[in-house]
Amino acid sequence: MTTRLALLGSTGSIGRTCLRIAAGHPGRFQVLALAAGTQWELLAEQVRAFRPSLVSVATDEAASALREALAASRAPMPTIAVGEEGLRAVATCNAADIVVSALTGGIGVVPTVAAVRAGKDVALANKEALVIAGEIIARDVRRYRVRLLPVDSEISAIWQCLEAGRGASIRRILLTASGGPFRDLPAERFPEITPEQALAHPTWVMGRKVSVDSATLMNKGFEVFETRWLFDMPLEKIEVLIHRESVVHSLVEYADGSIIAQLGVPDMTLPIQYALTYPERLPSPVEPLDLAAIGSLTFAPPDTARFPALALARHAAEVGGTMPAVLSGADEVAVAAFLSGRLLFTDIATLVEETMARHESTRDPSLDDVRAAERWAKATAQSLVGSVAAAGVRGRTTPRSAAR
Amino acid sequence: MTTRLALLGSTGSIGRTCLRIAAGHPGRFQVLALAAGTQWELLAEQVRAFRPSLVSVATDEAASALREALAASRAPMPTIAVGEEGLRAVATCNAADIVVSALTGGIGVVPTVAAVRAGKDVALANKEALVIAGEIIARDVRRYRVRLLPVDSEISAIWQCLEAGRGASIRRILLTASGGPFRDLPAERFPEITPEQALAHPTWVMGRKVSVDSATLMNKGFEVFETRWLFDMPLEKIEVLIHRESVVHSLVEYADGSIIAQLGVPDMTLPIQYALTYPERLPSPVEPLDLAAIGSLTFAPPDTARFPALALARHAAEVGGTMPAVLSGADEVAVAAFLSGRLLFTDIATLVEETMARHESTRDPSLDDVRAAERWAKATAQSLVGSVAAAGVRGRTTPRSAAR
Repeated sequence: MTTRLALLGSTGSIGRTCLRIAAGHPGRFQVLALAAGTQWELLAEQVRAFRPSLVSVATDEAASALREALAASRAPMPTIAVGEEGLRAVATCNAADIVVSALTGGIGVVPTVAAVRAGKDVALANKEALVIAGEIIARDVRRYRVRLLPVDSEISAIWQCLEAGRGASIRRILLTASGGPFRDLPAERFPEITPEQALAHPTWVMGRKVSVDSATLMNKGFEVFETRWLFDMPLEKIEVLIHRESVVHSLVEYADGSIIAQLGVPDMTLPIQYALTYPERLPSPVEPLDLAAIGSLTFAPPDTARFPALALARHAAEVGGTMPAVLSGADEVAVAAFLSGRLLFTDIATLVEETMARHESTRDPSLDDVRAAERWAKATAQSLVGSVAAAGVRGRTTPRSAAR
Repeated sequence: MTTRLALLGSTGSIGRTCLRIAAGHPGRFQVLALAAGTQWELLAEQVRAFRPSLVSVATDEAASALREALAASRAPMPTIAVGEEGLRAVATCNAADIVVSALTGGIGVVPTVAAVRAGKDVALANKEALVIAGEIIARDVRRYRVRLLPVDSEISAIWQCLEAGRGASIRRILLTASGGPFRDLPAERFPEITPEQALAHPTWVMGRKVSVDSATLMNKGFEVFETRWLFDMPLEKIEVLIHRESVVHSLVEYADGSIIAQLGVPDMTLPIQYALTYPERLPSPVEPLDLAAIGSLTFAPPDTARFPALALARHAAEVGGTMPAVLSGADEVAVAAFLSGRLLFTDIATLVEETMARHESTRDPSLDDVRAAERWAKATAQSLVGSVAAAGVRGRTTPRSAAR
């Protein structure tokens, strides 16, 4: 059996791992379509190696550069599409069995929805799609009878643990979090955190946005949404547990008190391959987990005082409607502002909170409603960057009583 | 749906927990038959509470005492059977859906085989049955199309983890062991271990034989047999891992490197209830596992220098044939001799080893062959107790070079 793949985000961390898995199992996968942003050089290499018939890039300039690069080689020239239309073309690519949705940020929403509505199984790495449009996507998945295959390590773990349950009633989902690079940093030093420090995750190698989201724990908040919508799980049954070794990827507690957990080395190859080969488990080059060598696995409750993003995400999930789209949009702006040096690390949550405070959520939103809310959130957050930054710097020079 | 139960070993630790589960789910279980040893007073109470139509005790004296006790109460008088025939009657009790095999030691073999051959699903707690007659029972289970439902906490964990696999190929089974009460005791102090110390297990409350077997790690060796036969697992895929907290009850590693684990508080209610209600998971009164409160789970390789019983068990499993019956028979004598003060703790493994060394294993044994080998082992071990004890005491007064 050959699984035909279309990849949204082929030059990112998830996309590259997908292609490495495809290369490692010759004959098992066929790569039909690739969508990237502006990294046309890497995309040209991928085209030469995997010969897709369709590719897409973000800009006309990238398209020209790609065309030129490919003309110079002997590879057959694929159709080259551009922009939102290009993403949609890849997401709905006729012969694809699985669409891998691995774009970063809100840009992933529309192609993910398009893939579902085209009747594709979607391997979902783009968390923001489920944050912004979770209710809509969950409904469409049922309506179009497709499968949403989790790619995220933690969400894949829950999925694998649920396989052991087969309809048994669930008491709790325990979503583990490494705690990020600042899990041991005292609160008063948080304002000093540099982008470089935030990008250096202790256990996982990831893209820039998701690395910063992991450092603030916003990423774990997003995974609460993923758990909510992928497994139709009430929010009050989803708990976050700090587990610094990133070995237990998550756990499911059943009605009888028994807990099933999924463990493995922290390597995205595992959950991605499982999503692409489910319900099979193919051999993988991932080294086995050596628990005796690791020696000890630790667990602790999360600290929402130092990591307010987690509470903000949960609040947005509880409010529902268009509020999660605002959470996601504001976070995207805040992370970009932090990475470009315009905001302190601690300002990220503040900017998200300030933006959410200005939003009145609409119930039962359409896809257009959540997209509009996300756009509004981005514009509003952009307009607030200056004032939040000024307040953040003032706060930094004055010792805060709440600091601990 | 009502599940009709027959219990072999109703007054033991597993039997009492079974009855507590039955009492906790009114209408879900009916108790048809109970077999006990000589604890007729407790058995009389169980008869009054559960009204089985058949009971069995080990001796005529116990039968008379039971009859008298029941005559004094208003409970309907059940049929009272005695001895091996009584065990067989309970094991093959006509209307039973599940026979719980929870006798201790080699006495459990014949009724377990009888239950399987009578077409009963067997909830198996009697490890020795699978040590002595594993190959025979595994073959009969296929032939009579019945299910062997593991009751042991670790084996139940493997069973639950395998539910997540559905035929995926398995790289390793990681069988966890608490390490018992002497996991931190230096080797040179092992000869001083008293029966009282050996019976005080750090995490599990169990019968006397299994408590001592846990202290020597022979119990873990027996579980290697259970894993071997219950899941048709090659010995080289079964690894033992010391995990002192007894929270991760065991783990299964799949071909892709992903590991599924089962966790829970150390309470036999969980695996017993799962065996009796599979594939359902009923609510249980067991308190939830609080990983954040536990804080840390540890893992280490087993120390076969201090715990030679584990290596003896693995050796017997590799030899196969009648050797495992000899392992079990000799261990039963050795544990009894230790508990009655005739052997040192360290003599247990020595006596087993000496008995095994005198045995020539027969391939492809029948049930009669393994029973004869077990009887031979018991007689041989009895005859060796004196010389092993004398050597043990001499060894104790002379510092051993091998001690560490």
